[in-house]
Amino acid sequence: MTTPQTPILNLASDNVSGMSQPVLAALIAANSGPEPAYGSDQWTARAEALLSEVFEHEVSVFLVATGTGANALALAAMSPPWGAIFCHSEAHVLDDECGAPEMFTDGAKLVGVPGVGGKLTVEALAPVVSHFAPGVIKSVQPAALSISQVTEAGTIYTIDEIKALGQFAKQRKLMFHLDGARFCNAMVTLGCTPAEMTWKSGVDIVTFGATKNGCMACEAIIFFNKTDAESMPFRRKRGGHTVSKGRLLGAQMVGYLENDHWIDNARHANAMATALRQGLETIPGVKLPWPTHANEVFVVVPQSAAERLTRNKIRAAPWDSVSLPAGFSIGKDEQFLRFVTSFTTTKTDIATVLQTITG
Amino acid sequence: MTTPQTPILNLASDNVSGMSQPVLAALIAANSGPEPAYGSDQWTARAEALLSEVFEHEVSVFLVATGTGANALALAAMSPPWGAIFCHSEAHVLDDECGAPEMFTDGAKLVGVPGVGGKLTVEALAPVVSHFAPGVIKSVQPAALSISQVTEAGTIYTIDEIKALGQFAKQRKLMFHLDGARFCNAMVTLGCTPAEMTWKSGVDIVTFGATKNGCMACEAIIFFNKTDAESMPFRRKRGGHTVSKGRLLGAQMVGYLENDHWIDNARHANAMATALRQGLETIPGVKLPWPTHANEVFVVVPQSAAERLTRNKIRAAPWDSVSLPAGFSIGKDEQFLRFVTSFTTTKTDIATVLQTITG
Amino acid sequence: MTTPQTPILNLASDNVSGMSQPVLAALIAANSGPEPAYGSDQWTARAEALLSEVFEHEVSVFLVATGTGANALALAAMSPPWGAIFCHSEAHVLDDECGAPEMFTDGAKLVGVPGVGGKLTVEALAPVVSHFAPGVIKSVQPAALSISQVTEAGTIYTIDEIKALGQFAKQRKLMFHLDGARFCNAMVTLGCTPAEMTWKSGVDIVTFGATKNGCMACEAIIFFNKTDAESMPFRRKRGGHTVSKGRLLGAQMVGYLENDHWIDNARHANAMATALRQGLETIPGVKLPWPTHANEVFVVVPQSAAERLTRNKIRAAPWDSVSLPAGFSIGKDEQFLRFVTSFTTTKTDIATVLQTITG
Amino acid sequence: MTTPQTPILNLASDNVSGMSQPVLAALIAANSGPEPAYGSDQWTARAEALLSEVFEHEVSVFLVATGTGANALALAAMSPPWGAIFCHSEAHVLDDECGAPEMFTDGAKLVGVPGVGGKLTVEALAPVVSHFAPGVIKSVQPAALSISQVTEAGTIYTIDEIKALGQFAKQRKLMFHLDGARFCNAMVTLGCTPAEMTWKSGVDIVTFGATKNGCMACEAIIFFNKTDAESMPFRRKRGGHTVSKGRLLGAQMVGYLENDHWIDNARHANAMATALRQGLETIPGVKLPWPTHANEVFVVVPQSAAERLTRNKIRAAPWDSVSLPAGFSIGKDEQFLRFVTSFTTTKTDIATVLQTITG
Repeated sequence: MTTPQTPILNLASDNVSGMSQPVLAALIAANSGPEPAYGSDQWTARAEALLSEVFEHEVSVFLVATGTGANALALAAMSPPWGAIFCHSEAHVLDDECGAPEMFTDGAKLVGVPGVGGKLTVEALAPVVSHFAPGVIKSVQPAALSISQVTEAGTIYTIDEIKALGQFAKQRKLMFHLDGARFCNAMVTLGCTPAEMTWKSGVDIVTFGATKNGCMACEAIIFFNKTDAESMPFRRKRGGHTVSKGRLLGAQMVGYLENDHWIDNARHANAMATALRQGLETIPGVKLPWPTHANEVFVVVPQSAAERLTRNKIRAAPWDSVSLPAGFSIGKDEQFLRFVTSFTTTKTDIATVLQTITG
Repeated sequence: MTTPQTPILNLASDNVSGMSQPVLAALIAANSGPEPAYGSDQWTARAEALLSEVFEHEVSVFLVATGTGANALALAAMSPPWGAIFCHSEAHVLDDECGAPEMFTDGAKLVGVPGVGGKLTVEALAPVVSHFAPGVIKSVQPAALSISQVTEAGTIYTIDEIKALGQFAKQRKLMFHLDGARFCNAMVTLGCTPAEMTWKSGVDIVTFGATKNGCMACEAIIFFNKTDAESMPFRRKRGGHTVSKGRLLGAQMVGYLENDHWIDNARHANAMATALRQGLETIPGVKLPWPTHANEVFVVVPQSAAERLTRNKIRAAPWDSVSLPAGFSIGKDEQFLRFVTSFTTTKTDIATVLQTITG
Repeated sequence: MTTPQTPILNLASDNVSGMSQPVLAALIAANSGPEPAYGSDQWTARAEALLSEVFEHEVSVFLVATGTGANALALAAMSPPWGAIFCHSEAHVLDDECGAPEMFTDGAKLVGVPGVGGKLTVEALAPVVSHFAPGVIKSVQPAALSISQVTEAGTIYTIDEIKALGQFAKQRKLMFHLDGARFCNAMVTLGCTPAEMTWKSGVDIVTFGATKNGCMACEAIIFFNKTDAESMPFRRKRGGHTVSKGRLLGAQMVGYLENDHWIDNARHANAMATALRQGLETIPGVKLPWPTHANEVFVVVPQSAAERLTRNKIRAAPWDSVSLPAGFSIGKDEQFLRFVTSFTTTKTDIATVLQTITG
Repeated sequence: MTTPQTPILNLASDNVSGMSQPVLAALIAANSGPEPAYGSDQWTARAEALLSEVFEHEVSVFLVATGTGANALALAAMSPPWGAIFCHSEAHVLDDECGAPEMFTDGAKLVGVPGVGGKLTVEALAPVVSHFAPGVIKSVQPAALSISQVTEAGTIYTIDEIKALGQFAKQRKLMFHLDGARFCNAMVTLGCTPAEMTWKSGVDIVTFGATKNGCMACEAIIFFNKTDAESMPFRRKRGGHTVSKGRLLGAQMVGYLENDHWIDNARHANAMATALRQGLETIPGVKLPWPTHANEVFVVVPQSAAERLTRNKIRAAPWDSVSLPAGFSIGKDEQFLRFVTSFTTTKTDIATVLQTITG
């Protein structure tokens, strides 16, 4: 694992940015004096209060440092070891966490369901869920539905789509999880409240991501029903995810939420992605498989453009997907790339990328 | 879980302090620009190089945010699910991690062995280890030995004691783990090098704690033999312990190790504990079960003194132990307390505590 | 769970038959005197010797009482918890064992790959396996390939097809497992030796089923490479699959293998299935999606025929499959059924079934 | 693992006997026709009805083939992965099952509590259980109490002792498990009913052993409260312990229970042990650490006597224990042995053993 040559402009992931200033400021403030350990500190208490306020609901909150930890713990609270968890066939929980959900659930089965543009539909889900019959012993038992909002294709579910999935989950007695690694990016596009995107639409548990959108390492597992959360203190500790100096997490979340900072960050990132998208649409030979709903732009560029990016130390992530629209193909002399914008991306960055691709 | 009334002086744990200034400074520096994600950043690279230098050995390093995660991952790399891991009957891995080692090892058995002052001896270990016969299928198989340095009683193993345990481990084909949550506090008391306290004495894997001694959330799992570490990248990811913005951990470790900052912090903390100890020895009615080797003072005080501490919002941790010396007893009108000093503890703090206990 | 009304003729499963006479006779003989426990008995020794002889290879044998136990243990010996095990999307290990492989592997991922008639091809496997890149930490790691011979569609792989999969497995560094719940039924159709169907074609581990073909509860996990089996004594014990009066298993296997009894049983069962197939082909309105290679006949019959079977207490298993040939559909007034023949099935049984379907 | 030279008289374990005649007869009868699979057969139904009758309580019954499987499954139904299960420090579940309970509970902690003669007392348990405080997150949570009746020292709990433990379990909100590998041997000594020894004394779940006392491979997990059993069908299947031809287990249990056959077998075995005990008491130089309550005799014999036994191919099990009475020691020229009698042991066998030891 050699460190790759440092790019001048890295748009491969929103994880390449650090903390934004208000988050860092909160962390510095929180560092100044003694605080009780293991999440009994005042910063964690304030973060929890803010989240209840933001969600317009008394929520049970568990802060952790990683998205993989947050997702795996959330799913473990939703499914027995003999449960089936339904998700998109390219879901992060299924495909990008080295089996963390299987570890934390003690072996539940993640069942991938295909869907164009990273999105699940009731139509696609229904027959797959029906295959796992409740009470049939040889079969793992339907336990949970997990969606990503923003999806792995950079698209978002509308409120109506989430509600439809929520109703389906309720009918089938599935707990409904929303992996919100880019929660705020979706929310600002929809122009909705956190409540509308979650519990008002039937969501039971949210992985509320803050890391990608301005924090350094901070995610919240959020339960809308206290009884669902009863095992979580033990699960979190046992998973090694209870941070001893808990203020690290509490302070980041406070800095993130206060003064709508999180919303400002997401708006900026989304605007930069939109600008990139609009620029790309004007370049001949460039193909865009999916709409750009948030802060990710997926694009197919000619091989020559990809080489120019590399030569100029501009980095995007090489991509691959099975949820391309029907008829969309990638030629041998083309490359499929993902660009991710963040609160640190500038208009100049976008211009540089567009110029380089244009050649 | 209500937040307890904030104490004015909290010596219950070394987790009540935040980051020391050089650690915070490194984190701020690391925050300033883009960095590759998932530990490919330059700060992590520098932390790894520094650890190899400090240990005078090319080491495989895995940074994580919690001690429980570090210990559980380390033990998982040392024992199959059907293994026995021998440790002190009051070891943190056995008694204070809600079964994290069992979770990460997939059910290995932690076998507690008693010992006065938190310390294991070959004499106490030998018959217990022999009970688990290699090749006898009904029995879990001897796999690892884990010691805490500093121990749970605030004492430390001498280099010769570690060597003796190392030889025993080698004879019995046990991997040898050192839980160094307070690694540096032990090291400065011994006046030895990191190498002498570990691989030169037979230790295979170290949980190298930095959180308690100046960081916010940073521990390193250190392997002296690369092949022992082969599964660790997958184990860490799968456990949700691979931090996406890895510089969070790398920067802390760099700030911690550079310019001998870690050593300064530990020297200070130990000196404060020694001062507290010396003061306590002069107070009538105060009993000290074990020597004070590092930054923890375990003390039995009269009930009246304990109440004075509470009244004055000075907090120590109520304690309990089965490894008290023969004949040492705690009366009904006495309380057993643990005081922990850190880089933030001042001479004034110590004077305040002593004055309050004296009454 | 009410006991269904006892059918007069039950062809729903080969598990509805008991032991055949030579198996019972061996069990009675084995019962007569004392024997050492936990598989140290002479019957188990004899079974192991017979299997080495039958496979023309010194094999490591682990007898267990259930197919689910045998498969789950075999897969656990082939994959780390962060491994991917590739199998057909309707494989028994994936779909019919309530997550036993996930439990025994501690959370490995079973990846289903589609294929007509229950069969995997290198062409279908290659891109799926390639998706899981060796050394990419976020991805579970390619570990094993598992095929069912006879498949879940009642078809069989030719020797050349197994060899092609074996070569692919070797190229991709996948351990190669053959789930032989109906091992002998496939073997007699191919007219090959056990060796040809397994290690000579690249198979590493076999679940050698004897229960369905004449035993009461006896399966062998067979390793062709001793080092692959090193962990198995502990895995079997820990899984609760080491039978204390081990002769129960040893004796069944001896009775099963001696005098080619197993081959006679499978030939008879296959002949009965062929007779059923041939009869069905002559009945108008009856549709057969796949060839009949062993002792299972999958058939679509008119609803009226299905009702006649029920009325006459003749039982077949209602079926469902996603591996039907392109263009093959099942109408609303049709039923998809599986008939399984065994060593107890008679020509009269077949005639009765055919007559009832004909109406 | 070489097969040891077959002894002429093997009293090392009750697992060296096969099935008794009524059990074999039931199995032969059950073999004669078709039966539905997976426990839907009439023999299993009859076994379940008989057990409800025998226990004077509607019970939920799960038949499995091994004691390790039965115990591990029972404990998994009683404890979350972060639970503590209290048992004697020499309990079979703790010491002789290669970590099966840890596997099936997904890592619960078995906490051994010492006690003379293999027996737990409330006095010994109380402080140990108190160490694990309910609601303290770092600590695994008190979940279950498990006792062995007959104990690992061949002794038995009186009804009053079981009741006292049952009350303690209730106070501490522990599920109460009885490992009845030798259930009937204890019951006939106590002269009590199955109900008195279990649910009437506070026991929640029983591992009801039949293998050692006349069956070949048959144990029942018995729940007195249906809701406790809800997860068990999935746990059993997933553990590979649902036997496909379920009549194997049902028939054995029917043959075992009908006509008080099980009671006759246990009475005989116990009488043989008593005869052996009485004979041993008259031999100079022979020491008996514990009373003989059931079908096991633990005895220390001079080395010369042990050698005579070996020379004459009489086999007992070499023993070792930490629950010897205070002051009881074993000399260097002595050997500690366990003799186990069964339904197959004869008066002549006992005479032969006594004669050989006498020399």
